[in-house]
Amino acid sequence: MKSVGRPSAKERKPYNMDAIVDVAVQVFLQRGYDGASLDQVAEAAGITKASIYYHADGKEALLARGAGRALDALFAVLEEPAAQDGREIDRLKHVVKRTVEITVNRLPEVALLLRVRGNTETERWILEQRRRFDRLVANIVKEAQLKGEIRGDIDAGLVTRLLFGMLNSITEWYRPGGGLSAGDIVAAATRIAFDGLE
Amino acid sequence: MKSVGRPSAKERKPYNMDAIVDVAVQVFLQRGYDGASLDQVAEAAGITKASIYYHADGKEALLARGAGRALDALFAVLEEPAAQDGREIDRLKHVVKRTVEITVNRLPEVALLLRVRGNTETERWILEQRRRFDRLVANIVKEAQLKGEIRGDIDAGLVTRLLFGMLNSITEWYRPGGGLSAGDIVAAATRIAFDGLE
Repeated sequence: MKSVGRPSAKERKPYNMDAIVDVAVQVFLQRGYDGASLDQVAEAAGITKASIYYHADGKEALLARGAGRALDALFAVLEEPAAQDGREIDRLKHVVKRTVEITVNRLPEVALLLRVRGNTETERWILEQRRRFDRLVANIVKEAQLKGEIRGDIDAGLVTRLLFGMLNSITEWYRPGGGLSAGDIVAAATRIAFDGLE
Repeated sequence: MKSVGRPSAKERKPYNMDAIVDVAVQVFLQRGYDGASLDQVAEAAGITKASIYYHADGKEALLARGAGRALDALFAVLEEPAAQDGREIDRLKHVVKRTVEITVNRLPEVALLLRVRGNTETERWILEQRRRFDRLVANIVKEAQLKGEIRGDIDAGLVTRLLFGMLNSITEWYRPGGGLSAGDIVAAATRIAFDGLE
């Protein structure tokens, strides 16, 4: 039996958990999580599958780590002072701004987070975290409506879904280096959502 | 060799191409297109793989048919009189309204269309059709901006991506029979996008 602790000299470079997660996220995005295999992750990383097992328990662990990066960043936003204090509409605008920034800066991880379907326990855990995030944002929307700071003629849950649907779409069309900054997208999304196109 | 033209008596019900595409779309959505196999489609349909091959050339053909239903419906919208004539902003609002209606009424097919990644020739053809649709909508946005009917301080392409990102998100959270009609979503999306939340 091969030692799993010592990658062979044939391997292209030393790997740590973070680097393996980087590669796994890319492979999961390209093949779909269900369609991707640990063999493909190993091949893309240029290491043996045994080396991956030395760092992670398997495919689900790599998904949890990859999507977890996006979840950690998004939940941290809700703890920021500007998301906690002040007028409700300003708290909401802050969450919108920071969500766009995180999406642009952690594009692969957020894309992976949003493409999770729920066929495994880890995927279902990720979906539950997403629902928890949505509920916390919907609460801010509801408070902003109660104070008359935003329109109250649309259900708060529906506002949240449509607003974050707009932001989440960034993972589908944003290309880094394409001349569009996070700030450009924040400005555009905030104008459309809060002031409207008309 | 088994005859592919005559499904055996063991099969649960007679199948035609449309029914097989219905099942294939569901399996592709559940497993991801890359992760799904023709065996899984056959199992879900309760027929043999040979019966599928009698109707369709294989997995890519089923994807083309499934996503094609959504593409056909969406491109047909652009040919409707209300999308062709009148003020540009009203043309745009009509396209928004009909896109929501088609998304709600053809939920699985539109979801499949939006999850295509581009690993096969058929997927790349679908992505090219999506880009063509986006360009046609962006042209309406641009004309509406030139006539001063909608705000001109955001690039037309970016407006289109964010606006349709909001609409496309319907496939991620809409549950038929949940008490929300297509009309409710049209009203909410139109208010947010054109009038704004504030």
